[in-house]
Amino acid sequence: MKAEIIAVGTELLMGQIDNTDASYISKRFPECGVYVYYHTVVGDNSSRLRDCINIAMSRVDVLVLTGGLGPTQDDLTKETVAQVLGLKLVLHQDILDEIKSYFEKTRHNRKNLVMTSNNEKQAYYPEGSVILPNRNGTAAGCIITYSLNGLDKTIILLPGPPWEMEPMFDEYVIEYFQKKNTEGLKSVYLRMFGIGESAMETLISDIVTSQTNPTIAPYAKKGEVMLRVTARYDKKADDADIILKPVLDKLYERLGEYIYADSDIELKDVTADMLISRNITVAFAESCTGGMMSQMITDISGISKIFLGSVVAYSNSIKESLLKVNHSTLDKYGAVSEKTAIEMANGVRLLFNTEVGISITGIAGPTGATLDKPVGRVFIGISTKQNTSSYEYTFTGNREKIRYYSCIHAMNILRQYALMKG
Amino acid sequence: MKAEIIAVGTELLMGQIDNTDASYISKRFPECGVYVYYHTVVGDNSSRLRDCINIAMSRVDVLVLTGGLGPTQDDLTKETVAQVLGLKLVLHQDILDEIKSYFEKTRHNRKNLVMTSNNEKQAYYPEGSVILPNRNGTAAGCIITYSLNGLDKTIILLPGPPWEMEPMFDEYVIEYFQKKNTEGLKSVYLRMFGIGESAMETLISDIVTSQTNPTIAPYAKKGEVMLRVTARYDKKADDADIILKPVLDKLYERLGEYIYADSDIELKDVTADMLISRNITVAFAESCTGGMMSQMITDISGISKIFLGSVVAYSNSIKESLLKVNHSTLDKYGAVSEKTAIEMANGVRLLFNTEVGISITGIAGPTGATLDKPVGRVFIGISTKQNTSSYEYTFTGNREKIRYYSCIHAMNILRQYALMKG
Repeated sequence: MKAEIIAVGTELLMGQIDNTDASYISKRFPECGVYVYYHTVVGDNSSRLRDCINIAMSRVDVLVLTGGLGPTQDDLTKETVAQVLGLKLVLHQDILDEIKSYFEKTRHNRKNLVMTSNNEKQAYYPEGSVILPNRNGTAAGCIITYSLNGLDKTIILLPGPPWEMEPMFDEYVIEYFQKKNTEGLKSVYLRMFGIGESAMETLISDIVTSQTNPTIAPYAKKGEVMLRVTARYDKKADDADIILKPVLDKLYERLGEYIYADSDIELKDVTADMLISRNITVAFAESCTGGMMSQMITDISGISKIFLGSVVAYSNSIKESLLKVNHSTLDKYGAVSEKTAIEMANGVRLLFNTEVGISITGIAGPTGATLDKPVGRVFIGISTKQNTSSYEYTFTGNREKIRYYSCIHAMNILRQYALMKG
Repeated sequence: MKAEIIAVGTELLMGQIDNTDASYISKRFPECGVYVYYHTVVGDNSSRLRDCINIAMSRVDVLVLTGGLGPTQDDLTKETVAQVLGLKLVLHQDILDEIKSYFEKTRHNRKNLVMTSNNEKQAYYPEGSVILPNRNGTAAGCIITYSLNGLDKTIILLPGPPWEMEPMFDEYVIEYFQKKNTEGLKSVYLRMFGIGESAMETLISDIVTSQTNPTIAPYAKKGEVMLRVTARYDKKADDADIILKPVLDKLYERLGEYIYADSDIELKDVTADMLISRNITVAFAESCTGGMMSQMITDISGISKIFLGSVVAYSNSIKESLLKVNHSTLDKYGAVSEKTAIEMANGVRLLFNTEVGISITGIAGPTGATLDKPVGRVFIGISTKQNTSSYEYTFTGNREKIRYYSCIHAMNILRQYALMKG
């Protein structure tokens, strides 16, 4: 089934927030046989929204609308959908009761978040809707089925805030479609580090062009490249792996040295899994990344088994006092140097008493460049009882990109250490 | 002028990346009199892209296409646009030379990123294009003007990666439109912390409904609410402030206690500005947020003037050894408690010798809840030479949301301290 996601909200068109709902839904939908062909964003304007709904109904089978279910005057998704489909809005007393109880529950620590009369609007839904409860907010979602020129259309309304939309989608929408699914789709994600997108495609272009099932699609993501290899298969015959194997074998032959995972898992998760399973304890000393590397690894619940903590040493005095970097090292080589990176890594390892210490020191910009060190120059150190090393990089791009690249390269150094120990 | 942004790329429809390009462009375009009415995302498919271009040309004046300018076989934006407009693609020798020199420049530290023959495709552009140089990659952008049924249409092609697109947009596209601009638009952003969206709207609904110029639009963002107040004005008369003032005065009267800024600036930036201007040095002790608060503040270039660093104390042993939290405190009250938060804040302040120490300890979930402490329970401590306090919260939502809310509440506590000192 083909789907389109229409996100409703002027705040998206003002660039105040990213349309992460569309990404989330797009990523999960194929699991239940629904493929997203279009994303649309339109403002809180009934007539433009109506036109977008009509365009979408002419080109897809499943239409998901996110946002515009809130209590305020410019929330008009339900009203507009009901108008396009010719349906009445009807009151659901149980939803009204739940909204009341939600406000009771969260009242104690957010004293200004009180229920107001416009919250009642949130209890009205188009007639015939299947209601999707909201455990994280007041806007319930709904599913409406509709027949257009003899074709079945499914229209799904979901709240805009990701922490409300995502659990609702996982719990109700996925299940709704999984029941209907006939053809299967299986994707393998080959994730690589250390090779560029064009170089990768040149290495495998003959394989890509000769394939129709599975299909092979390359993606570049900040600092990484990925191939998605997707087989359409017969659910009864359960032959996905048979279709995938010969192509995967060829790809591994050409790209094996760069592949770090064969699933849609990030470098940090692969690294964390390896550290946990091998019981390798770590601590970080961060300068230019200012905590980003620590934040990245602590995104993972349960990482406390091997991650003890970090020092964000943003000033030289802290590098000396806490991490025991020699004053003379800082004087002679500077904070952004191979020597300092090594001493920081040693220092944090000893301070936290871990197996490995990782350090990052560099010039994230836009200021801070010196005659011999450009913006983007970064040193990453690794220290163990047996060994210390330092790696030098010169990343291009803005502050955010340089910090991010520093972290994923440090993560890759950790991963390679863990691999070696395996 | 009305605009639509079409992002081209199957990776967006697979949910591998968010469409941040659309947000960025949407945010900046109004500065030069261009208002974004639609975002569209479509895959790397020539016929569907063609249809989307035709729909866009029928409803807007300015069409921006991002992505699909790369070297690989599925990059087909230029080819499709040329086809729709009936234009030939012509070789630009200077672009080809620049691509070659880009590969020379970045070769030394990324040995597998080599130029391949398919990069040459990137030197072809639709005839009559104004070329927009790319300082951060190999894909130049372009601007094409076109007349459709007597109406002027502007079509702009930009690369997909944000670190290439954003500088190109800032340097060339903004300037291109600023020259054409007749009517002015001025927005004031009132940013609030500590009040919910509905409560805010109820307080000001009479003002919102009675306004046409300026317009007032409410937005909710994770943990914060914002009002955008936008006046359309005559550039010659320069009367924007006269139009805005009476409405802003009324809004301040009702909402003043919650407003922390009157521009589109984040809480962390307001806080950082105040800390820097008042020379208040800080250090953080992070447990459940694992470095997120430090990363947040070090997003800001120049923050090293007052931010000395942090300890990410992810294990109890580090809370004791580095932050000097009493063993008996951890034993009796647990790591997630008022007492521990206070001792962590004291500890980090003394360790880094700063004016203020801030601590965050909590249960980010999904595991870790105890009988008396649910997921989302967070304590934030603040310590100065004169005083220590601790604040208790119970946030709802997933791990990411709980960690983020913890950081912005800690940031607000810091801001309030700085305010008091002012």
